[in-house]
Formats: sequence, C-alpha cells, structure tokens
Amino acid sequence: MLKKVLIANRGEIAVRIIRACKELNIKTVAVFSTEDRDALHVKLADESICIGSAKSSESYLNINNILTAAVNLKCDGIHPGYGFLSENYKFAEEVEKLNIKFIGPSSKVIKTMGDKIKAKELMEKNNIPIVPGSKGVVSNVNEAKKIAQSIGFPILIKASGGGGGRGMRRVYNIKNIEYEFKEARKEAISAFNNGDMYIEKLIENPKHVEIQILADSFGNIISLGERDCSIQRKNQKMIEESPCPSIDESLREKMSKYAVLAAKACNYENAGTIEFVLDKDKFYFIEMNTRLQVEHPVTEMVSGVDIVKEQLKIASKIPLSIKDNIKINTHSIECRINAENPFKNFMPEAGKVDFLNIPGGKDIRFDTYLYSGSSISPYYDSMIGKLIVCDKTRVGAIKKLRSAIEELVVDGVMTNSLLQYSILFNEEFIKGNYNTSFIEKNLDALLLSLDLDVGD
Amino acid sequence: MLKKVLIANRGEIAVRIIRACKELNIKTVAVFSTEDRDALHVKLADESICIGSAKSSESYLNINNILTAAVNLKCDGIHPGYGFLSENYKFAEEVEKLNIKFIGPSSKVIKTMGDKIKAKELMEKNNIPIVPGSKGVVSNVNEAKKIAQSIGFPILIKASGGGGGRGMRRVYNIKNIEYEFKEARKEAISAFNNGDMYIEKLIENPKHVEIQILADSFGNIISLGERDCSIQRKNQKMIEESPCPSIDESLREKMSKYAVLAAKACNYENAGTIEFVLDKDKFYFIEMNTRLQVEHPVTEMVSGVDIVKEQLKIASKIPLSIKDNIKINTHSIECRINAENPFKNFMPEAGKVDFLNIPGGKDIRFDTYLYSGSSISPYYDSMIGKLIVCDKTRVGAIKKLRSAIEELVVDGVMTNSLLQYSILFNEEFIKGNYNTSFIEKNLDALLLSLDLDVGD
Repeated sequence: MLKKVLIANRGEIAVRIIRACKELNIKTVAVFSTEDRDALHVKLADESICIGSAKSSESYLNINNILTAAVNLKCDGIHPGYGFLSENYKFAEEVEKLNIKFIGPSSKVIKTMGDKIKAKELMEKNNIPIVPGSKGVVSNVNEAKKIAQSIGFPILIKASGGGGGRGMRRVYNIKNIEYEFKEARKEAISAFNNGDMYIEKLIENPKHVEIQILADSFGNIISLGERDCSIQRKNQKMIEESPCPSIDESLREKMSKYAVLAAKACNYENAGTIEFVLDKDKFYFIEMNTRLQVEHPVTEMVSGVDIVKEQLKIASKIPLSIKDNIKINTHSIECRINAENPFKNFMPEAGKVDFLNIPGGKDIRFDTYLYSGSSISPYYDSMIGKLIVCDKTRVGAIKKLRSAIEELVVDGVMTNSLLQYSILFNEEFIKGNYNTSFIEKNLDALLLSLDLDVGD
Repeated sequence: MLKKVLIANRGEIAVRIIRACKELNIKTVAVFSTEDRDALHVKLADESICIGSAKSSESYLNINNILTAAVNLKCDGIHPGYGFLSENYKFAEEVEKLNIKFIGPSSKVIKTMGDKIKAKELMEKNNIPIVPGSKGVVSNVNEAKKIAQSIGFPILIKASGGGGGRGMRRVYNIKNIEYEFKEARKEAISAFNNGDMYIEKLIENPKHVEIQILADSFGNIISLGERDCSIQRKNQKMIEESPCPSIDESLREKMSKYAVLAAKACNYENAGTIEFVLDKDKFYFIEMNTRLQVEHPVTEMVSGVDIVKEQLKIASKIPLSIKDNIKINTHSIECRINAENPFKNFMPEAGKVDFLNIPGGKDIRFDTYLYSGSSISPYYDSMIGKLIVCDKTRVGAIKKLRSAIEELVVDGVMTNSLLQYSILFNEEFIKGNYNTSFIEKNLDALLLSLDLDVGD
C-alpha cells in the first residue's frame, strides 16, 4: 500500500481524498495557497505545505511547486482530484519521472484520451458507437456538403482546436451549409488561430449519461453503473443521479459493456468515466474523463463501493476485490451547492460563512470544505458542497433531498440551494423526463417559483 | 398514512423522528420546554408549542400538557421517542383514549412487558430461555437456600421493587446466603418500602446482545439482526455494534427466532427490542424494550431499513414491505457522544457549544441536536450525539470511526469523545473480545492513555 500521498487539490475533494487515505492508514500531505491557510483540508491532513499565492496558476496549477513539495515531504503517491492538474498529461509525466505514483491512469492514456479526435478514432476502431461525422478534418464546403448528406441533417460544424462553443455552428439544411461553414471557420481562425473544421451529426436535446468504471493493473475492469447528468447550467452539471430514470436493464448492460470495452481499448487503469450522449435508445461515446468525477458519490451510494479507496488500492497494485459489474437496487441523487446568484446568470459569490448547518440523517451525505466561520474564496470554483442522498426508490430519494435542502443553512453567502430545491418540485424532473435542455427551458419559471424578494 | 404527528421528546431523537415524518409527507409538531426554545427540533418541525418549564417533570413528562397540545393542534399520532414517556403505559392509555395513534405497541403490551417478573413468566410459558431463578417472590432464607442449590452458585438476590442496584446482592456460596438475603431485604425495605425478594442465577461478565424486531398489525414479525451493546459505563451503553463480533450465523438465527417468538407471545406491534444476556453460546431473555432504541441507527446502517419510517407506516396500518429476517453483510458501529467528564466519574457537563464541526464522508452519520452556537442544558440527558459508521468489515468500521472522531469538534463543553477514541485502540475491543465488564476493567488504563493535562 502507498505510504504517504500528496493531494494536489483543495476544497471538498481534497477533504474527500484525505478521509479515504486515513481509513487505509496512508499518511496525507495537503497543499494550499496563501488564501487557503485556514481551509478544512489543511486542518485534516497529517502534514500541509503552502505552494504559492491565491491565483491557481501560482499554486494549485504550479507543477514545479507541487512536485518540490512531494519530493521534500517524501510522498510516494500524488492524487490530483478533479479539475486543476488532474487531466494534464504533462503533470502526470513529471510525476512518473520522479518515480512517484500518479493516482490515475498513465500519462500516455491521459494524452490519448485528452485529444478528442484521437479518442474518437480509437473508439471507432474498437466498434464503440460514436456520433456519426467526418473522419478527421473537413477541408472545404463541398466535402462538408457530401458528409452532411451522408449522415443527414441537422449537423454540427465544430472547430478542431475549439471549445466553449466558439467556431461551432448548428446547420439544419443544405441551403445554409456554405454560409455557416465559412463563418465557423472564420471564427475558429480568429479565436484559436486554427481553421481545422470537422462535422458531427447534431443530437438535439440528448441526455448526458456516463458509466463509472474501475480498472486494476491486472486487467480486471468493472462497471459500477451509470449516472444521468443531464441537468446542467452553462454546460456544468447541477444534479446527477443513478440509475438514469429513463433507461432499462438491457440498455444499461449494453452501455456498461461498451464502457468496459472503451477502457480496455486504451489499456485503462484506475477509476474513469465514459461519457455518452443518449438519444432515446441510441447512445454515442463523446469522451472519457480520465480522473475521479465530482459526482462519484452518487455511484458510491448505490454500489456501496468506495471509489477513492479503490483508486488508492489500484495505485498500490492491489487487484479489484469485486470482479463483476455492480447491480443497482437503490436510487441516489446528488445536487451541487454553488455559491452563486442564479438570478444574475449564476454569477459566483464569495465571502465569510457566518453560520453553517449541515443536513443530517439516514443515507444523507454532505461533502463540503466549509465550517461555521470559514470563507469562500473568489479565486476558485464556486462549488462549495455536494448534497447526496439515497433511498429505495427515486421518489423516496427526491423527498429525502427536499428535506435535506430544508436543513441546509449557509449564512452570509448566496447559494443555488433554493433553485435546486425548486427543481425537485418540477413535474418533468419528477417524471424523470428531462434532457440537457432542461435548465435552459425551465430556468425562468423555476426562478419565478422561488418567490423571493431579490431586489431589482 | 398518519397526517400530523406530535413528537413527545427533545434532542437528537426528536430531530430524527421529524426527518422521517418529512420524508413521508407527515406534518410535525415539536414540543419544547422554555429551556429548549432555540433547539434544533423546534426549528425543523412544521409547528411547535411550549409545554412547560425546564424541569422534565413540568414539560417532557407532563402528560396533561402534551395531550392538550396534541388535541389543540389536531394531531392524529404521537411519537414518544425513547426515555421520558416512551414506556409509560398510562401515557399510552391516555393517548389511546383520545383516539390518537400512539406510535408504538398498545398500552396493554407496554404494561405487561414493563413488569419484569410478569414478562419473564410470559417468556418462560413460551419456552424462551430466561435466566434460571425463583418463580416469583422468595419469602424466606430457607426457600432462598433451596433455590440457590437447585440453580447453582453464584446467585443474585434482587428486590422486586428495585432498581439502580439497591436491594441487590451477589452470593457466591451457601455460607453467605443468610446474611446477604437479610441485608438485601433490609435495604429493599428502606429504599422501596417493599421487601419482596427474588433470586436469579448470576451470569458473570456476560455480553449484552439485543435483537431488533419489527411487527406490523397484520401479524408479520421480522428480525433485523442483533446489536452488541456490552460496552457500558454505569449501566449505560457507550458503544453498540452490529453484527455482534462473537456469535456465529447459527446462534444469530437462533436468537432471532426466539426474539420473533417473544414478540409474538405478547402480540407485539411496531418496533421493539428483545434484550438477552449472552454467556458464551448460552443466552437468556432479560427484558423487552417496547420502544425505539437509542442505538437503532446501527441496525439501519447494516439492514438498509429506516426503522422510524417503518414505525410510522406500521402505525398507519401499512403492512411490512420486508417479509423475511434481514441478512447482515456489512458492519456498523455507533459511539455515543456525551457531554461529560470521564475523569470525574462521568459527571455531566453543560454550556454553550461555541463551535461545532460534524464528521462527514461516505457511510458516516452523526445524529445530533447541536449546531454551532447552540446550548447543552444541565436539565436533560448528557448524550449530545451519536456517531455511526458502516464499512464492509469490522476493522474497516473501526478505522472509519477513528477518523470520524478525529473530525469531531465540540468547542466549549467537555465530551467523552477522546475516551471513545481510546477504546477504538484497545486490543480487547479490536479483537471483539469484550463483555459488560470492559469499562470497569479498563477505564483507568484508557484514561491514562489519553495523556491529557486535566488539572487536579
């Protein structure tokens, strides 16, 4: 077993990882920015070390400072958490060079799966369904038209170097394709200095469903079932649940089978997630997250498996104790609590938490880095906690989540908890009949339903 | 389903019951003493009403005030929790007369099982093993000698009207019986004005093992397995766990079978607990608790069953959804956190909790009524919370409990948490090799191990 692990992260996920280490008798090193000197993860770790100033680029993204800390404090493992350096293959490479165990897959796997076109090519080679589209770069309008006609409208024109929706165009018929292709390329060149374009079939309002897998270094790979993460705002997940309310056992098994296949195809090791878009009963691989996910506790609740402990065991060359895919018999829902103002386009909020009351009771879990009197920094992500519940049925889980939110008090800083609460009373949500367009479609009505005096 | 339940209790158990009601869409009424006006259970309930002054006899034990509140606020159910009026058959009787549902067994059952001699007679009639001893009252020394010789030494002379160890004598041989019998009777008369004595075989240093049962109003009775509650101080439980580390599957089944039989023998309805003393592989009925137990979450953790929700459903004439005894595959341990000074014979402590940090994470539950800034009253029981964990193995659960205690902070008031922590490192405890004499035997060494500067 690893002896001493440095956690290259902050916030609730650093706390989460420290807890798993403690239960396995692994010593922990917390790193922190000057802004985080009083943070909970610093208080809970066996040792802690400051790695720079408040700005992430100077601390939590500062590879050199993190590696220096790991060497000085004689760590034999580094857990990257999520975000920050967790999918940075160069960081993983540097860790490997120091003969420290990177708790995750190899840098090579991170690199391959991080390149979206390469990852899709690899999946296609292994007969895993991907969204139909061009093979690699589309050089001109004529080629674009041919591809569009072969896969059928609507299509999505995307920039190879793109992100954040720039250089991206939805096209619904052949008449518009020339104009949109040229506009998209123009935008891509100006934004990314890269005019390489590719085309995908546009799946309208799909569900976002992902499969959690675990793979050890002995070739054992299992699926822990799916999570439905379709409730999103600004492409960020808000609510996740397992099982997905709109798939049946045979579709679940099929998706699990392909997820295990995908992990096998890239020689995956450690915990990972295969993300699919789901269009009724058709699903397509979109990407693999080669790290722990924010929403992993949902799967922990329904499977009983401690995913972070498994990560640490896998990294310590211990084979998986579970050999078969997990069957899910209960229902878990997580909602992310963010310090933000839903009335002002989710603008992040920061400040001191004067008083905190954490929901409690049977099958209720609140993963957070907050305590009464602690601070929410403007420098980092606005997610301050994750409220996760589990019950025998989905209806039971929804009711439990409602009462748990009623118990949550975060005085001093505005959060999205009331918006989350209102979603739990929305008819579409209750029926499980929602997709990625849910928030866009319902936000105004949800905010109105809050009936708050929110000023002007 | 019941519509509105009054919770005739306070503290963590009132909070626990309110949570269960909320998840079942049952409205809740909290009652409180003037001392408890800012208590958490008052904040969480739909309605609340003051029922008297700080002294329990004037509020939480004030039957008249509680019933008046229930009638005025149109409650159709009353949950008594544990302690206070929960085993007071006269209270249950009054509730029944008002045509309000008492959430528990009938007043008749409470009365029968509350009389220790009657309860034992009923069990014996139904072939449930009881501690060998006299049938009813032993009138003189000669009779006492005869009984002692037939059941064998050592024996326990007990006062029929007794309690708290008074009028009780351990006798190890025939020579001492005359003296001890007379002394015990003298003490009983002076303490209880009742010289009725009876005799039981003395089981030295037994384990205390109890079986949780659920019985609905359709004759279905199931066992949810056992709890080992042998770690006790001053006859009060400190640590409880399930399963019991020292019994095997066949003994477990046998005890469950007798527990179900005991419940059937008294026409039991609702949740109840059959308490046994266990002497190696022999067990004897000692009493039945006709109410919810403090340590019920241990069973909830390993069984997945929400015992309080089941109580509410049973009281609403809904049949049990589970029909068979539960098989236990995980391990749960609870430790009670008391505001008390273990260095001063567990003297209760009271005061303001300046800061509270609640342990969190996977399979960790802390049932409490505290929040940062709340108060611990000197008027009521010193138990301020219950820390419950669950893991695949007993060793895993012990490790999890250790790290959870490390996260617990209750600033401003002394608690027993460090003593509890030290027990988790005791070799006998780790081996599961302990009985009810554990604390008596180990207290000095445990306190020394704390290595604290505790003043004089």
